[in-house]
Amino acid sequence: MDHLVREVITPGKLRDWLEYYPSQNRAIAQQLAPAIQVPAEQIFIGNGAIEVIQAILHQFVHGRIAVNLPTFSSYYEFATPGVEPVFYQLEAAQDFSLNVDDYLAWVERQQPAAVVLINPNNPSGTYLSIADVTRLIQSLRHLESIIIDESFIHFAADPDADESIPSVAKLVADHPNLVVVKSLSKDFGIAGIRAGYGVMAAERVSRLLQHGYLWNSSGLAEYFFRLYARPDFQAAYAPVRQRYRQDFAAFQTVLARIPGLQVFPSQANFVLLKLTSGLSADEFFTQLLTDHGIYVRTCRDKRGLENGEYVRVAGRTAEENTAILSAVQAVLGNHSGRGLAG
Amino acid sequence: MDHLVREVITPGKLRDWLEYYPSQNRAIAQQLAPAIQVPAEQIFIGNGAIEVIQAILHQFVHGRIAVNLPTFSSYYEFATPGVEPVFYQLEAAQDFSLNVDDYLAWVERQQPAAVVLINPNNPSGTYLSIADVTRLIQSLRHLESIIIDESFIHFAADPDADESIPSVAKLVADHPNLVVVKSLSKDFGIAGIRAGYGVMAAERVSRLLQHGYLWNSSGLAEYFFRLYARPDFQAAYAPVRQRYRQDFAAFQTVLARIPGLQVFPSQANFVLLKLTSGLSADEFFTQLLTDHGIYVRTCRDKRGLENGEYVRVAGRTAEENTAILSAVQAVLGNHSGRGLAG
Repeated sequence: MDHLVREVITPGKLRDWLEYYPSQNRAIAQQLAPAIQVPAEQIFIGNGAIEVIQAILHQFVHGRIAVNLPTFSSYYEFATPGVEPVFYQLEAAQDFSLNVDDYLAWVERQQPAAVVLINPNNPSGTYLSIADVTRLIQSLRHLESIIIDESFIHFAADPDADESIPSVAKLVADHPNLVVVKSLSKDFGIAGIRAGYGVMAAERVSRLLQHGYLWNSSGLAEYFFRLYARPDFQAAYAPVRQRYRQDFAAFQTVLARIPGLQVFPSQANFVLLKLTSGLSADEFFTQLLTDHGIYVRTCRDKRGLENGEYVRVAGRTAEENTAILSAVQAVLGNHSGRGLAG
Repeated sequence: MDHLVREVITPGKLRDWLEYYPSQNRAIAQQLAPAIQVPAEQIFIGNGAIEVIQAILHQFVHGRIAVNLPTFSSYYEFATPGVEPVFYQLEAAQDFSLNVDDYLAWVERQQPAAVVLINPNNPSGTYLSIADVTRLIQSLRHLESIIIDESFIHFAADPDADESIPSVAKLVADHPNLVVVKSLSKDFGIAGIRAGYGVMAAERVSRLLQHGYLWNSSGLAEYFFRLYARPDFQAAYAPVRQRYRQDFAAFQTVLARIPGLQVFPSQANFVLLKLTSGLSADEFFTQLLTDHGIYVRTCRDKRGLENGEYVRVAGRTAEENTAILSAVQAVLGNHSGRGLAG
């Protein structure tokens, strides 16, 4: 917002960004390429990551698609009639983490045309290290498509990636079946601008652009892509990202000590909670919202989490996290109090 | 811009529109429905009309698609490999107008699965009355799809539509093969916001939304759709539209008197010109831009207009139109002067 106000609104340039056509897909990809350090020809700009997901599922998946549960539901809901989703269940008892050997053996049995891995996973927050994802990509080079959704990767701390943003986007150069999906809505809080991209083989980008996606960005999305690529913005972003991760780690640590909750370790910007004191996710949601004005996401509609015990809670600023923690403690404390009395 | 500044920017609400997810497709359709007077179930919201065009061509056209020339090139460029465009040439000698009987006989011979009619046509500005379009729709009910692109219809004055905006969108109720495409970029000067929609059979909207297009709008596009639907905005818009049309009619009349130009009567917000004095479209373009700062669109890349004699000029405010007329006269006067001297 600071950049937008200083560079666009105050100088009276907003009208230009709203009035004129945005640049075409390849021109924006050129702007973005230096920031994500892959060739522009491998970048497909999306009207949000969801458009990239839709395009990949409709164009580059023919046959079965392997999706891990719990997951982001568009990965099976957007599958066209010819595509059959098959589900690999991640287990709460293993903190929803993926066992690479077991997964590869399952893929061998299921013979999907494509696999999807969200890393960190949504809604569990579980993370696969770059080393593990690289191994998976190398083991699955015979598939039509490997889709790695890194929409929450800016929140992850990978020991092999130091302080930089971990990503397997560079592997696209050697893996023409790899597609890396990235939303910018999460890390930058701009879901209303709709900015995402996919990194994939140059030939696939060309195929998508040959029959569509000419002006699928907007003026403000283009402004943001250009901003994101600027070294001054990157320099300002790095310490903010670092501070967010520290605040979120502290938030998780305190959450894990609250009785009545099981916390699944997360490297995303949200954490999956299991309510263990008998309070349902719906009750927990309602009390947090009505008594404390805090919105959490119940997971009853998520395949694999339908039993009504799970909620996903997003981390915010340190101050807001403190308020969330107090509210969660109040709701669970009341409940256990009522439980003892009843 | 007045509304945006007053309702969004000044009260500090811009951040909300940029931070939060826009509403989903059907929710925005609900907002828009009263303004275009068709049921919400028949409205598909697009990230610009171009996304609607892409979706229709990819989903509801199987076989040949009949496209009139000259045209908006996406209507054949976005056709997927299984779709074969066939072209019906509109003739300069007939002012690029469509002879309905001749066209229907041609369609009968060509047997396309779908036809596209842009009304008013881009880039010729030629207009088919509601009566003629209705006759075409009734005659072509056996086709898989009839695509009527009304992106410039707000600029048309149809004797049968009084001062209201002429549209065949209501015919979708009785014609399940009809798709009406509408961009809002043209009439409202918001190409950077990306706002368009399609009106089509409810079953087709459902098919599109079943596998995609969940959050394909943006915060500012949603704001605009809501604004457009408001009676106070419609009331403010009506006289502005009326004044624009009057100014544009006057602009065309004066243009037609300038020697060296043939003007094709237009009911859009642009007019197609043929340069008749030997000056090429490229020379005309370059001189207008470099000497007068005025941008016109050469049509050398348009199928059917490749001979380099055609340019498309957009109408602006009355004051800007006067400046355009002076510049055009200056460029053509210089040229005929040089011609005489040479």
